[in-house]
Amino acid sequence: MTDSTLGFRLLNKDGAARRGEVTTPHGVIQTPCFMPVGTRGAVKSLTQRDLLDLDTQIILGNTYHLYLRPGDGLIARCGGLHAFIGWDRPILTDSGGYQVFSLAAMRRIKEEGAEFRSHLDGSLHMLTPERVTDIQAQLGSDIAMVLDECMASPAGPDAARDAMQRSVRWARRARDRQLQLRHDAASAPEVLVTNPGQAQFGIIQGGVCPELRTESVQATLDIGFEAYAIGGLSVGEPVEVMYDVVGHTAPLLPEDRPRYLMGTGMPDDLLECVARGIDLFDCVLPTRNARNGQLLTSRGPLVIKNARYAEDMAPPDPDCACYTCRHFSRAYLRHLFIAGEMTAATLNSLHNLHFYLDTMRRIREAIVFGSFEKLRLEFRQTYSRRPQI
Amino acid sequence: MTDSTLGFRLLNKDGAARRGEVTTPHGVIQTPCFMPVGTRGAVKSLTQRDLLDLDTQIILGNTYHLYLRPGDGLIARCGGLHAFIGWDRPILTDSGGYQVFSLAAMRRIKEEGAEFRSHLDGSLHMLTPERVTDIQAQLGSDIAMVLDECMASPAGPDAARDAMQRSVRWARRARDRQLQLRHDAASAPEVLVTNPGQAQFGIIQGGVCPELRTESVQATLDIGFEAYAIGGLSVGEPVEVMYDVVGHTAPLLPEDRPRYLMGTGMPDDLLECVARGIDLFDCVLPTRNARNGQLLTSRGPLVIKNARYAEDMAPPDPDCACYTCRHFSRAYLRHLFIAGEMTAATLNSLHNLHFYLDTMRRIREAIVFGSFEKLRLEFRQTYSRRPQI
Repeated sequence: MTDSTLGFRLLNKDGAARRGEVTTPHGVIQTPCFMPVGTRGAVKSLTQRDLLDLDTQIILGNTYHLYLRPGDGLIARCGGLHAFIGWDRPILTDSGGYQVFSLAAMRRIKEEGAEFRSHLDGSLHMLTPERVTDIQAQLGSDIAMVLDECMASPAGPDAARDAMQRSVRWARRARDRQLQLRHDAASAPEVLVTNPGQAQFGIIQGGVCPELRTESVQATLDIGFEAYAIGGLSVGEPVEVMYDVVGHTAPLLPEDRPRYLMGTGMPDDLLECVARGIDLFDCVLPTRNARNGQLLTSRGPLVIKNARYAEDMAPPDPDCACYTCRHFSRAYLRHLFIAGEMTAATLNSLHNLHFYLDTMRRIREAIVFGSFEKLRLEFRQTYSRRPQI
Repeated sequence: MTDSTLGFRLLNKDGAARRGEVTTPHGVIQTPCFMPVGTRGAVKSLTQRDLLDLDTQIILGNTYHLYLRPGDGLIARCGGLHAFIGWDRPILTDSGGYQVFSLAAMRRIKEEGAEFRSHLDGSLHMLTPERVTDIQAQLGSDIAMVLDECMASPAGPDAARDAMQRSVRWARRARDRQLQLRHDAASAPEVLVTNPGQAQFGIIQGGVCPELRTESVQATLDIGFEAYAIGGLSVGEPVEVMYDVVGHTAPLLPEDRPRYLMGTGMPDDLLECVARGIDLFDCVLPTRNARNGQLLTSRGPLVIKNARYAEDMAPPDPDCACYTCRHFSRAYLRHLFIAGEMTAATLNSLHNLHFYLDTMRRIREAIVFGSFEKLRLEFRQTYSRRPQI
């Protein structure tokens, strides 16, 4: 590892579960931590003060979306993403790799990078490891991710190996570029670095094959990043397979650096993956499901449009202390959802994010008190993935 | 007038402008007052705490929408509209008359009432003056409006006279029904009265013809309501004509009762109509224009999608103290609007409503200090209806 711009203190361990503290240029993140997704510089249907009220520690922005619109150059000229969106807590930006694979109208992977057409206007773009590093330097997030080759669904071993190996080669190029910007910004006058303290995370690929994951870890550690993420999971593989890959990979990563599991997941996934040594999570699920009328509660999902809630004056989750549950009934939330009121998305998102962030708070507390296994078992007993009936 | 359920204290006068205090079962309203519109039990894109943060004194709900969905019976069984939507400050419900004329798929006006097809599912409905009174009794708003015959656009004198006279006959029937519910609820066991202190307002019609307005006032005062509204304006007539009708009608209404101008208007309309003796206003304009990307500021409208704001890091209105202006730039709001983020509607609505409510606060203060004319002139000088360039 080179000079670290990212601090990490491991405060407690309880089995493989870790309680830590990540220091960034925009403040400290208590881990394990869930990061709400603010794709285009806003967490959908919420305002920044809603996020502060939820005590959101860090949000995620999507490089692919912000690059296409309004553009990283514009954001840099406005002072970087923090200034542009009015958020002064930490921000992580993904690399855009996953979106190129899942959203772009066309894509062609070359050794140089990923060529694709914008899902907005069909315009042709090329994202290389260097370009993605530059874009994120201009966005000025606190944590930047390297460009990796993603698979939108589980791949066979050969494809997984090829993608993993290319991801390693790309990671090396991304790291070289990041270090160049960090130590010799004058050599890249076209890049406006808006957050000189930005850290860069490498991404472990290798699909569902333990050997490939081990190989990816070794090669990525050889390059050396401030920390490491596990990518390429939650793309359709069975959940037990995902847990196994996490259980295999996380312990291979440095103990003294945070570990980020990308794009996961369901509420019970958070506990299962903390149990396997993960520190950071992100997922669109709480906000996307909120907009679709699914409330995630301590008992399991609640589908608010169901007729049985039409006159149900109970809160969505009687055990929840969020703004929505303290003030509104299932009957009202059902009415707003069926009427198509935007306020439905807001109130449901507030609840779902509170549930995720509160689950993380309980996890952090349990690790400190050595009672994480108890919490995990309790959660397993009360939480069901099947919608409540 | 019969026993009053609505208190009104006239605190100050400055010319024809009035500073007052309306007392309802859910608290006091300082007038002049603007009422944000929460058509289906939510002010679009906002939560109730957003409304409290704006210091919203009273909101308006739409009888037509709530009757069709989720239904006044359901809301009554849930304890009334206040309990159903989690709002414990005053609520006014309109009569649905205007929506029948502007939204319904088909309508036929008979002496009995208005027959129409729902804009939601085409189902056939009949709203009579009695039925609308019952619906609002079940909703339990603090102020109910009588059913009137509305014109979606300015009508000729004959049509205006017919509609006005029918509105008077309907008002009598609505009042009889309201008094029956108030004094002999047992005679209407099918109606669940959820707010026994509900007041009922009559509505003055008569189009743009002063004689018809005078006639309407006399006939409606003869019936006797807790207070009176001026309806049938802001439907397409020139603004000076609207001001003239208000200037003619308002002084004919009782000094000791609040006066409500329905469905108005632009920011400068508020001052011009306060100057003519109006106490209460409602309009969808601040929230609708917000969703369309038009910010109403002290200088005039600002069309946020304009390219000139792409990198403009100034707040929408440098003179505004709202949450949006204190935290966000035109550049960010433009980005959110163009990207189609729901958060754009929220932030724009917060600003526009703050501008309206703050204008009303300044009006109230100016009346107390005897400086209302000064404020009105100042507003005229700085505010323009033309979008800023």
